[in-house]
Amino acid sequence: MASVADPLPPLAWRGEADGHLEILDQTLLPQRVHHITCRDLETAWEAIRSLRVRGAPAIGVAGAYALVLGLQAHADATAETVLERMAVAGARLRDCRPTAVNLFAYLDRLEAAARGAGATSGREVIERLLRESRAIQTENEEACLDMARHGAALLADGDGVLTHCNTGPLATAGIGTALGVIIEAHRGGKRIQVFADETRPLWQGARLTTFELMRAGVPVTLICDAAAPQVMREGRIQVVLVGADRIAANGDTANKIGTFAAALAAKAHDIPFYVVAPLATVDPALADGESIPIEVRDPEEVRQPTATAGVPVYNPAFDVTPHDLIAGLITERGVLRPPLEASIRAALAG
Amino acid sequence: MASVADPLPPLAWRGEADGHLEILDQTLLPQRVHHITCRDLETAWEAIRSLRVRGAPAIGVAGAYALVLGLQAHADATAETVLERMAVAGARLRDCRPTAVNLFAYLDRLEAAARGAGATSGREVIERLLRESRAIQTENEEACLDMARHGAALLADGDGVLTHCNTGPLATAGIGTALGVIIEAHRGGKRIQVFADETRPLWQGARLTTFELMRAGVPVTLICDAAAPQVMREGRIQVVLVGADRIAANGDTANKIGTFAAALAAKAHDIPFYVVAPLATVDPALADGESIPIEVRDPEEVRQPTATAGVPVYNPAFDVTPHDLIAGLITERGVLRPPLEASIRAALAG
Repeated sequence: MASVADPLPPLAWRGEADGHLEILDQTLLPQRVHHITCRDLETAWEAIRSLRVRGAPAIGVAGAYALVLGLQAHADATAETVLERMAVAGARLRDCRPTAVNLFAYLDRLEAAARGAGATSGREVIERLLRESRAIQTENEEACLDMARHGAALLADGDGVLTHCNTGPLATAGIGTALGVIIEAHRGGKRIQVFADETRPLWQGARLTTFELMRAGVPVTLICDAAAPQVMREGRIQVVLVGADRIAANGDTANKIGTFAAALAAKAHDIPFYVVAPLATVDPALADGESIPIEVRDPEEVRQPTATAGVPVYNPAFDVTPHDLIAGLITERGVLRPPLEASIRAALAG
Repeated sequence: MASVADPLPPLAWRGEADGHLEILDQTLLPQRVHHITCRDLETAWEAIRSLRVRGAPAIGVAGAYALVLGLQAHADATAETVLERMAVAGARLRDCRPTAVNLFAYLDRLEAAARGAGATSGREVIERLLRESRAIQTENEEACLDMARHGAALLADGDGVLTHCNTGPLATAGIGTALGVIIEAHRGGKRIQVFADETRPLWQGARLTTFELMRAGVPVTLICDAAAPQVMREGRIQVVLVGADRIAANGDTANKIGTFAAALAAKAHDIPFYVVAPLATVDPALADGESIPIEVRDPEEVRQPTATAGVPVYNPAFDVTPHDLIAGLITERGVLRPPLEASIRAALAG
């Protein structure tokens, strides 16, 4: 296992426009720290698809760099040719994981930057895309810090905080979203006791959240996903903090399967339930959560490790938490309060 | 794996008062069908403690026979000596698993039978205990059939039914409680689609419920525990059926951890949530669920198979579903409806 001193960013771009993307293989954590070198789009695509890199912001940043990788072979072609190739590569990346919106938003942004005022060569288009990808990475890092500060102000000394899935540095280009808030409150001297859902079927809570919080020195206790209502009933939890993969215009929030259950439990116990996400997670084109596409993944994820052989499985990877269960969205521009539709619109306009 | 034709009762008493208890080791299912021969109380105690036999009714019946085993060595002693030994053995069995009440109720009943009108020898006391244990087993078998009939009448052709943990033949001395209802409805020609929660941490749903339903030919789909709200939101579930380990006088119900979460999800989607349990599961001495003792089990159950090494764990094995989330208790005497306190009182008096 990695020592607490190692920085463990989920990804890094190495070199210039002819460089490569290094991805930490999170499927092997916490037992093994192993990096994958991506020198083409397909290697990066597979890494995103298989959750070697995951978390909506990190997927978005990885996908941005993957677009650069997908065009490097055409660096000597004309700008027009590279722009044509970019459309194909972008479509491929949009076909990787359907729910998290950050990747889509970042690809839109990259493509607009590439097509903007007259690039004179293919190489210049690729350089622009790399510059924009780096800007996206830096912006996400800064947004994480801002979310962490806004959110930490909501936590009180001694709070028990339930969180679901993994939303730490591994899921972003910075300190994290929900875990960033927790880590920031801890750094600020507040005693926070985290309860981490294990997060079936892929164990992001059991494997990654516990790993990151133990490295950060934040007290963490692992619980089974469906134990949360009982733990709340016993008075151990004062706040719920989760991330988001896509937020509709009305505040309905798609996030890792199990988030909706945590929100229902919080509601039943009058515990505030906060979503921590950068504004890039909002998809203003979707009126509500009904239209958010929900990725359904391989039955084998659920059959492992012990189910009866061949049993049919339904494995939606995300669920949608209705906006009326959400006490606030903690964004880089502050905490958006209900009615979320209005406060989201104002934040996006601001 | 066992063929569909094999009967797989969770336990069987072999022989007479000097016989032994055979327990199917459910921790090895569905991969392996292996029986444990219990010739003393401690072997049976360990089998109950380790969930080799589990399910409140089956625990109760196993515990009753375990009391017989605990006294066989004293068959040649006086009745008085055996009654003294019985108190020690009973206390040991009461110390095995704290939440399910059936075992306590059955031990009370056995001890009363043993102390009743003058046994003249130790052997006679043991024979009485065996007779009473067999009666308890038969009564549970019959109660299961009655519950199944009452419950099946509540299911409609085409219903999607969510269930949690395992409540089938493996959990009882008969057709099961909640699964008994489902199997009976299926036998009666209703098309029922079951959604089985996998039931972390010990996978009773993934291992046992899927196994039993596939053997019975009932369509079953496995889902992660915390996926239930999303599956309900998609309109796939019309009824929730669960078992119970202990029911307080007001209807608050302790059952496998995760049951409360399923009840909250059902409430949010206006789906009726039924508890299927014999009246022996009611503990009229407890006013409400607050006083039901909740067993907290070994952290390793949750750390397996993939959590970060050494992470602190909180592992309550049960939770308490408040009575106001329960649409009815399906018992051997019919369906008890809210207000549950009054209907439970009437059923116990009847």
